[in-house]
Amino acid sequence: MITLLTDFGISDPYAGIMKGVILSVNPSAQIIDVTHGIEPQDIMGAAYLINAAYRYFPKGSTHVVVVEVDPGVGSDRSIIAVSAGGHFFLAPDNGVLSLVLENLCADTIIKVENETYFSKPVSRTFHGRDIFAPVAGHLSKGVGIDSFGPAITRDQMVTIALPKPYLSESGELVGQVISVDRFGNLITNIDLQKINEAFGFNNDQGLKILIGSHKIAGLSLAYHDAAPRSLLAIIGSMGFVEISLNFGNASVYCGETRGSIVKVSVL
Amino acid sequence: MITLLTDFGISDPYAGIMKGVILSVNPSAQIIDVTHGIEPQDIMGAAYLINAAYRYFPKGSTHVVVVEVDPGVGSDRSIIAVSAGGHFFLAPDNGVLSLVLENLCADTIIKVENETYFSKPVSRTFHGRDIFAPVAGHLSKGVGIDSFGPAITRDQMVTIALPKPYLSESGELVGQVISVDRFGNLITNIDLQKINEAFGFNNDQGLKILIGSHKIAGLSLAYHDAAPRSLLAIIGSMGFVEISLNFGNASVYCGETRGSIVKVSVL
Amino acid sequence: MITLLTDFGISDPYAGIMKGVILSVNPSAQIIDVTHGIEPQDIMGAAYLINAAYRYFPKGSTHVVVVEVDPGVGSDRSIIAVSAGGHFFLAPDNGVLSLVLENLCADTIIKVENETYFSKPVSRTFHGRDIFAPVAGHLSKGVGIDSFGPAITRDQMVTIALPKPYLSESGELVGQVISVDRFGNLITNIDLQKINEAFGFNNDQGLKILIGSHKIAGLSLAYHDAAPRSLLAIIGSMGFVEISLNFGNASVYCGETRGSIVKVSVL
Repeated sequence: MITLLTDFGISDPYAGIMKGVILSVNPSAQIIDVTHGIEPQDIMGAAYLINAAYRYFPKGSTHVVVVEVDPGVGSDRSIIAVSAGGHFFLAPDNGVLSLVLENLCADTIIKVENETYFSKPVSRTFHGRDIFAPVAGHLSKGVGIDSFGPAITRDQMVTIALPKPYLSESGELVGQVISVDRFGNLITNIDLQKINEAFGFNNDQGLKILIGSHKIAGLSLAYHDAAPRSLLAIIGSMGFVEISLNFGNASVYCGETRGSIVKVSVL
Repeated sequence: MITLLTDFGISDPYAGIMKGVILSVNPSAQIIDVTHGIEPQDIMGAAYLINAAYRYFPKGSTHVVVVEVDPGVGSDRSIIAVSAGGHFFLAPDNGVLSLVLENLCADTIIKVENETYFSKPVSRTFHGRDIFAPVAGHLSKGVGIDSFGPAITRDQMVTIALPKPYLSESGELVGQVISVDRFGNLITNIDLQKINEAFGFNNDQGLKILIGSHKIAGLSLAYHDAAPRSLLAIIGSMGFVEISLNFGNASVYCGETRGSIVKVSVL
Repeated sequence: MITLLTDFGISDPYAGIMKGVILSVNPSAQIIDVTHGIEPQDIMGAAYLINAAYRYFPKGSTHVVVVEVDPGVGSDRSIIAVSAGGHFFLAPDNGVLSLVLENLCADTIIKVENETYFSKPVSRTFHGRDIFAPVAGHLSKGVGIDSFGPAITRDQMVTIALPKPYLSESGELVGQVISVDRFGNLITNIDLQKINEAFGFNNDQGLKILIGSHKIAGLSLAYHDAAPRSLLAIIGSMGFVEISLNFGNASVYCGETRGSIVKVSVL
């Protein structure tokens, strides 16, 4: 099984062409789109989503992430293949796997250099088609990961700094919104473990959540715990505090978006 | 075969994650997207589309519908599994199957409660991942539908009232636009059977169709029956009267949209 | 393997329904979306994309293109099935295969008329579901292409004139933008072969590219060859000159889009 996570969108044929190349190499590959809707060149957004998604796929899956800033393609940035936690990852070496590799210990990290597995000639602009796709096809067919190039170490990989919640001097747990979904839910980087560490065992009702000028008392167990058109905070499906508006769009209602500061403290 | 119809959009990873969970349970499942583009929480829109779509899939397919208003998720609304007409349906008990069950007689209706088949822990916000997906995976693998919970009857399910055409005192068949597609076609809830009942055997040319201030004479057999940039009425692919603009977008041209009243009468 | 390229979008259920019909005919078909995001009725855009995409799929694939102007559906326009270069193509006879058939020599061209393979009744508006999908299903199952109707010749097919670059009196190679992708890259119809023919063996650095009031010196080998927020020209993944903005969107920056004139000359 191969998953794809890119910023290609779905109006251009790029994602479809990658699938054609993969299936030309491995006709029995099963290809699943995680999403092609990453904002162009949003490496941090992709870093969060691949970490949220990979764990729901069967072990042995190959997760292909193609999100790069312009200079990546055609530059001397590397492409890396990682074996970790029973999954394979194939991505540009631009930090997009930073969050995955905070959670998983890599067994093997390979700098993908063996052109035997590339589609030639390799174009100047579309390594998704000419390198990522055929390498993913061969990986999914069982070619050993160390066939694709030399091993490197974790600290030879590019790492991006992902914002972490911290405890302020006044005792607030300060995080931020890391993602806004289609429903306007504001997904933060604050999870229950961080709350427990900050305030002792978490008490859903004993917490106060602040975003902008809005205060929310307590964590809800369900959306309907809040009155219609009221804000609520809830532990979302990724395990993080999310701020939602019952019957509405919290992002629009609050005027908050990715990067907005969220504070959790005791009520 | 499993079909998915949700309001998740495709920029978030939710649909992809559901597929990962399904394939973790049943690696040989074939998953087809009907659409993830339902407007958020538009249960009525989903009710029309699942009824339009399921019949084109092979018998034995499992159709998963996840469209809910906020309070549904995490609330005590049920999830139901239905066997009807050789198909399986898995949906929240919020009326989204109302139209399907006007057309099909349910053999079995199950309240999905058997947590053996859930992914645990069940999150507060994403039952698509934690209940719908694994249950669909097991259903598609051949687990008997009555394994998932107790049987209930049709009248124990939530039903939503879908607008029906009616005959006015002045003899007009009064319906409404139930859907507008990408091309601006206005799809009504008036079908040939209703026209026959109202006016005797239908005569394509003997009818008059009114929408807003626009009058259309006769039903067309093809778009090109109308002059360019002219409105026409045609029996669309779902079997309902559709109002289209030759070489254009009828919805934009007329300023009409879902809910707009459409009247059919004899010319 | 069956690929789909349509203007159906993905919010309506049309693409999903086509898949259901294909899989009802051939349950083991593997269906890949090239894109459903063609602008409504943009035959020329579809002509470019199918030509760009088909070659990356395994031989023996069936490529289904459903992009039509309104009068096509339900009119007496034909549907054609073509065997060429080891691929099958199924499309309306409206010129959408013009570019493919400049590059490939057709072995067989069939006017699809044998209603045995249609879903009946054939609707007035959705031949994608009622003709294209079941015929593609049967083609992919191995039904011989000449089973679907009588053979016709290439010159009996509709051809659309696709803009070609030409050499101006002042010695400039004059082409145009044929496509703009999600990243704002301006993809032209000028390829290396045309440049070689016009100026002798191409010298990446010896060329000047003009678009609107913007002049670009030389072809880049990579995006990072240009300064941030600078325009560059590069041979893109389709083999054509593309104009890009390093760290930005060239289309927005230049105010240029499909149809914009691009001139290449010696520096």
